[in-house]
Amino acid sequence: MKTRRTPAFAKASAGRQNLIAVALVGALAFTATIARAQDPLSSWNDGAAKQTIVEFVKATTTQGNAQFVPPEARIATFDQDGTLWVEHPMYTQVTYCLERVPALVKTRPELKNKEPFKTVLSGNREAMAKLSQDDLMKILVVTLTGMSVDNFNAEAKKWIGEAKDPRWKRSYTELTYQPMQEVLQYLRANGYKTYIVTGGGQDFVRVYAEQAYGIPPEQIVGTAGGTKYGYDKSGKPFLTKEPKLLLNDNNAGKPEGIHLMIGRRPSLAFGNSTGDRQMLEYTKAGDGARLAMLVLHDDAEREYAYGPAHGLPDTKVGTFTQALYDEATKQGWIVISMKNDWKVIFPFESK
Amino acid sequence: MKTRRTPAFAKASAGRQNLIAVALVGALAFTATIARAQDPLSSWNDGAAKQTIVEFVKATTTQGNAQFVPPEARIATFDQDGTLWVEHPMYTQVTYCLERVPALVKTRPELKNKEPFKTVLSGNREAMAKLSQDDLMKILVVTLTGMSVDNFNAEAKKWIGEAKDPRWKRSYTELTYQPMQEVLQYLRANGYKTYIVTGGGQDFVRVYAEQAYGIPPEQIVGTAGGTKYGYDKSGKPFLTKEPKLLLNDNNAGKPEGIHLMIGRRPSLAFGNSTGDRQMLEYTKAGDGARLAMLVLHDDAEREYAYGPAHGLPDTKVGTFTQALYDEATKQGWIVISMKNDWKVIFPFESK
Repeated sequence: MKTRRTPAFAKASAGRQNLIAVALVGALAFTATIARAQDPLSSWNDGAAKQTIVEFVKATTTQGNAQFVPPEARIATFDQDGTLWVEHPMYTQVTYCLERVPALVKTRPELKNKEPFKTVLSGNREAMAKLSQDDLMKILVVTLTGMSVDNFNAEAKKWIGEAKDPRWKRSYTELTYQPMQEVLQYLRANGYKTYIVTGGGQDFVRVYAEQAYGIPPEQIVGTAGGTKYGYDKSGKPFLTKEPKLLLNDNNAGKPEGIHLMIGRRPSLAFGNSTGDRQMLEYTKAGDGARLAMLVLHDDAEREYAYGPAHGLPDTKVGTFTQALYDEATKQGWIVISMKNDWKVIFPFESK
Repeated sequence: MKTRRTPAFAKASAGRQNLIAVALVGALAFTATIARAQDPLSSWNDGAAKQTIVEFVKATTTQGNAQFVPPEARIATFDQDGTLWVEHPMYTQVTYCLERVPALVKTRPELKNKEPFKTVLSGNREAMAKLSQDDLMKILVVTLTGMSVDNFNAEAKKWIGEAKDPRWKRSYTELTYQPMQEVLQYLRANGYKTYIVTGGGQDFVRVYAEQAYGIPPEQIVGTAGGTKYGYDKSGKPFLTKEPKLLLNDNNAGKPEGIHLMIGRRPSLAFGNSTGDRQMLEYTKAGDGARLAMLVLHDDAEREYAYGPAHGLPDTKVGTFTQALYDEATKQGWIVISMKNDWKVIFPFESK
């Protein structure tokens, strides 16, 4: 029986063709890489927002330019909720705290029939939506304090790895904004240290920020409580999270937090709500080149549209008031329109 | 009249000789650089302390080693007073506060005849040495708070640029320890982020730490007060230093401050007194490779000798108790003898 054999030259030829194919694919990939390298903000439409960011970075990193900023002073601060990832309809951390209640009640059964825990345990979403700020604060206190730092980190990490956003059915860490990820990377590639300055809990954001944004724990400034140093039965020291507020990192607390944790005024600041106003004012009040930008949620189709600016409805989270819009115009802050400035919203859309 | 002219070839020859001289000096400098590169801790005598540092850094930065620490987790914390620079006979910051009193009284004349300001204004060193902790606290409050952050920074920077230590007649920033400067540089060259974790004022240390140690403001953790955001008459925002303690960065406050400001447990911690005990305990309680070291002031001739360990007299600053020495021995912390482990104390001695 004759076996069909591929002649040696054919093999070589196929090998050569494969090589050419590999080379072609490689060249295409290389071209795509070049294109991305040429446009670090490839998910941004051309417009004032993109142009301002690129011109600012070029001016502040070019030796001899009047706006040059020495590498050690290159600090950029970003609000998180609504600026780097989705905050609507509820802050992710509040969802975490509500979902922690059943496990918590198992260890503290005396809370089971007490409000607001009883309402949370009922699972009645309408009733839960009506909880007051005071009720929410009670829930935050018992779910975010009283445990060791290590236990909190482990619990929060586990939750963030499993929880899904109800609309996109994806992890919360997948719902970061691709155009803002590009800004973070672009700034870091140009020697800027990128910080999150969030009204959210500092410890909570630290749990996932390195994975989600490449921002390490020491570059997270957030609402922070005290901890208490102590020893376990074996004499091993540990820190317990205390219900004692050290920094309310909202509004005026943002520049105060920046001074406490960073000790320098940022060159750039990005926000999306009235809670970011003072951070932007403080940033712009510095000498030399400063940039302040606000993300406007005006894309009901691809994400959400909220806030009274442009006649959009106001909500409990991310309040972008007309007064904030007016101040932005007056102070020369750049408003980023999600609808018009962003080609895609999420990283998974650009893959 | 004949003028003495140097012939053209002589010029060329002199030029050539200069070139050779430059080349020789360059070669010598190059050789010295190589020698330093080969021994990053060249001001350390061979011994357990030096060997432990070198072996720790090699183990934690070698891929595949069981003790390998990924670059992003490489955190090293250093107490300042008595660990990185001279703290005896008085903390530099206390000297600053005392020396600020006359200027302060000019703007607030009502303090002139009030204690403890009256005593400070008298210049009577004996009387000043007897001031109580409460008196000192009053002086610290009025000299460190109540002004804008920018004004404080400008005042402190001016003072640190002019003030001299009474014994060495040199700037305080020249009285850093050369062997510790080498440890800082060696760690940074190996991917470690170096932090100061000081009982001193965070804002005060930030003023000079970048110049003195190459450590930027955002890597200074210290005793910190709150600030208050406000606007001047022209509407420009600024921060005012408030007499409100947020973090007492001593003893248990050190690990608490490390958690607040860094959010990670250090791999290495260096201290010199009981105020550093908890930082060292906390560091060593982490998983994997951890190193804790204590500087012992046992060199009365080249610097100072104090603390009851080894029968040295105790003082108000930098208390190195027998209990601390015993804990160091029990826990495997390395005690650095300034007398035996350090070839030189100060950078100016090695030039």
